[in-house]
Amino acid sequence: MAKTPHVVILGGGFGGLFAAVALRKAPVRVTLIDKRNHHIFQPLLYQVATAALNPSDIAYPIRSVLQDHKNARVLLAEARAIDTAARKVVLDDGEVSYDYLIVATGATHSYFGKDWERLAPGLKCIEDALEIRRRVFLAYEAAERESDPAAQRAWLTFVVVGAGPTGVELSGALGEIGLQTLAQDFRRIDPGGVHVILLEGRDRVLGGFPEKLSAAAAAALGKRRVEVRTGCMVTEIDADGVTVRLGDGSTDRVAARTVLWAAGVQASPLARSLGVPLDRAGRVEVEADLSIPGHPEVFVVGDLAHRVQDGKDLPGVCQVAMQGGKHVAKLIAAEARGARAPGQGRKAFRYFDKGSMAVIGRSSAIASTMRVNISGFLAWLMWWTVHIFYLIGFRSRVLVMFSWMWSWLTFRRGARLITGDVGALPPVRDLGPDGRLVLPPGEAAVALDPDALQR
Amino acid sequence: MAKTPHVVILGGGFGGLFAAVALRKAPVRVTLIDKRNHHIFQPLLYQVATAALNPSDIAYPIRSVLQDHKNARVLLAEARAIDTAARKVVLDDGEVSYDYLIVATGATHSYFGKDWERLAPGLKCIEDALEIRRRVFLAYEAAERESDPAAQRAWLTFVVVGAGPTGVELSGALGEIGLQTLAQDFRRIDPGGVHVILLEGRDRVLGGFPEKLSAAAAAALGKRRVEVRTGCMVTEIDADGVTVRLGDGSTDRVAARTVLWAAGVQASPLARSLGVPLDRAGRVEVEADLSIPGHPEVFVVGDLAHRVQDGKDLPGVCQVAMQGGKHVAKLIAAEARGARAPGQGRKAFRYFDKGSMAVIGRSSAIASTMRVNISGFLAWLMWWTVHIFYLIGFRSRVLVMFSWMWSWLTFRRGARLITGDVGALPPVRDLGPDGRLVLPPGEAAVALDPDALQR
Repeated sequence: MAKTPHVVILGGGFGGLFAAVALRKAPVRVTLIDKRNHHIFQPLLYQVATAALNPSDIAYPIRSVLQDHKNARVLLAEARAIDTAARKVVLDDGEVSYDYLIVATGATHSYFGKDWERLAPGLKCIEDALEIRRRVFLAYEAAERESDPAAQRAWLTFVVVGAGPTGVELSGALGEIGLQTLAQDFRRIDPGGVHVILLEGRDRVLGGFPEKLSAAAAAALGKRRVEVRTGCMVTEIDADGVTVRLGDGSTDRVAARTVLWAAGVQASPLARSLGVPLDRAGRVEVEADLSIPGHPEVFVVGDLAHRVQDGKDLPGVCQVAMQGGKHVAKLIAAEARGARAPGQGRKAFRYFDKGSMAVIGRSSAIASTMRVNISGFLAWLMWWTVHIFYLIGFRSRVLVMFSWMWSWLTFRRGARLITGDVGALPPVRDLGPDGRLVLPPGEAAVALDPDALQR
Repeated sequence: MAKTPHVVILGGGFGGLFAAVALRKAPVRVTLIDKRNHHIFQPLLYQVATAALNPSDIAYPIRSVLQDHKNARVLLAEARAIDTAARKVVLDDGEVSYDYLIVATGATHSYFGKDWERLAPGLKCIEDALEIRRRVFLAYEAAERESDPAAQRAWLTFVVVGAGPTGVELSGALGEIGLQTLAQDFRRIDPGGVHVILLEGRDRVLGGFPEKLSAAAAAALGKRRVEVRTGCMVTEIDADGVTVRLGDGSTDRVAARTVLWAAGVQASPLARSLGVPLDRAGRVEVEADLSIPGHPEVFVVGDLAHRVQDGKDLPGVCQVAMQGGKHVAKLIAAEARGARAPGQGRKAFRYFDKGSMAVIGRSSAIASTMRVNISGFLAWLMWWTVHIFYLIGFRSRVLVMFSWMWSWLTFRRGARLITGDVGALPPVRDLGPDGRLVLPPGEAAVALDPDALQR
């Protein structure tokens, strides 16, 4: 081993970034590799998708975060494989050798082997969020152009698959967009006619929370025009809607032009090249110290690791990743300083659960901490405070705080841009000056009330 | 004509939007058609391209702006042609009839007939700005990976073509990104080695301003590592750089991986379907009241119109478009109210020039108003105040004010995200733990100082 151990970290999410930060004063060289130049504050990504926040409010250049870490450098690159025998990471266009490796490349959604990603985008990165935002706000534009009531209804129907925190947060926001944000903005359609359908395979929303809180969340969703359908599985998705199989084996069809995916977990494929046992979702079965079997110099932290504590799987949440990253950094720092022999006498990782929260919408959330389960406005205030606290940097805190206060007071969303391709919208059937629809050639004109516009 | 005249406005820029707003209380129905859902505050678009502001800080949903205008509706659609004989606008997928038409579809950059758009993007919409941001920040990532000094220099060289306000503002910001924003963020390259080359065909930058101010701007650019080259024309652009022809007929070659375009004016092609005389740039030669010859019910405002006042062309700036939009709205409102017979006795449009400004960078701008020409910090404060004042809405004002203050204090830029495709970067030639470069197979390794990282 070289004099100064080289620690390579794959992934700049919560696990990888917190490991790099915790290694600041350790006598090591750190190389953090990510295919993006920014870290994302994942818990608020749904707010970018629903136009409440800007991408850069919740995304920070990794280089900026590690600017003052003189032992760290950042490489914009994608890791393709790990060669544990040769101790190197294979990139698209080169290789990087390591003394210690921390794999923190996380997980993405699982479409259960189906080719549904294009039809029902998930929410993992900024690009995903902007794509969802584009689809949601374009749906209203399409509905406004549409004259057939059934087709209009399909544009104003949004299906969200999966009722974990992300699915619940998305659904609540989708309801509020129609009921509040867009209420006054259209002339032909009533955005308040929005219909959100939240599909869940299990028997309740937010299965990780106590039952009482699930019920409170479901009630809060109901007030936002979200229809919760539990115990049903998606069997088909196409451009016109979703087919679901219910608990009794029967099937049902929902006509919806917008389907969003918040279900399943599929670990980063990088795990496969480690040559160690994986669980069904492709996550690495890590040792007590978060290293992999047979390779004490390789660690896996965050969503990519599978670990059982007190008989329960550790959940795929930020806190587990952050604590895992810090734990591993401490182990490596101690060995680099010579306080322990490499790989010997390492402390086991123990996750300290500070509690969990989910937000349903304006003034409504649920929170479950060690002793207390609360819902409603107080939980929402807690959620608010905790998320502002965990944001990185003064700038983001101020911007998010202001944006939230502004939205709360005005019922608006500040980032309602449609960017990218507009795509195919229904043809314009416009009200001409003589009160007749001006139609594309070949279609018959229908007389309409000329003053309908001036409602 | 129907009882309530139908006013169709094409384009939601300054001209179209201000016309729609000014028609709020007129007895007309207004349909504003734009291919995007948002209005852009164009003067600050370069700040999105250079990561100082977020897209939504300077872009507003047109529907929101016109939310309370009960006589107005918004249609997301692209106009393809205008049939002045039949008084209708032809869309991609339908038609809209009008009693009055206001064409405000503006202008874009002219590449003088060359196919350079992909090689040298211009700055007209949010997508353009994000593409420029992506290229600029990726260039530094590429330079950090590059080991050949000449290739590294080409990545750190930015060429801007055209030294009008946009070109100057972009150049100044590009210099500051290297000198200030990224100063501490890289390990192998010194971002302060940035080299910006501003190319201009005329004999000075900011030709529309007094000579003294041009000289002040050029000096301020020099301090930001911007090399101003006047009197030269671009003859070739490719992926490796730019070829220019100098005043004496000789040619020169600049190796640069990033070229941005801020030159030329090309009017919206929609003008051609009006069947009236156009100028060389494709702009419509409008009558004194901004209507087109032979069609008093059709107006052209903003960058798409060509009008001479006091012997000088009206410039393609926001103020001209805003004032033109308001002027036309007043004429239409008076006729709709019956105060004048349609097309009779209309007042001529007269542009009131409030002055102009351009910003070079941190604490540096120039301003030329009726009597005063100033440069430096005071002009910058003026620029700051005026732009905050003209922004639409309380939210944008607060966010932009805060972002600017934060940037001014910290020398940072808050929106430094690279989104979209990363594309091809130089291969990674990484410093392995033994102090040797780990190269892609087939390339020879070179010994390097193992502690070079810990500078």
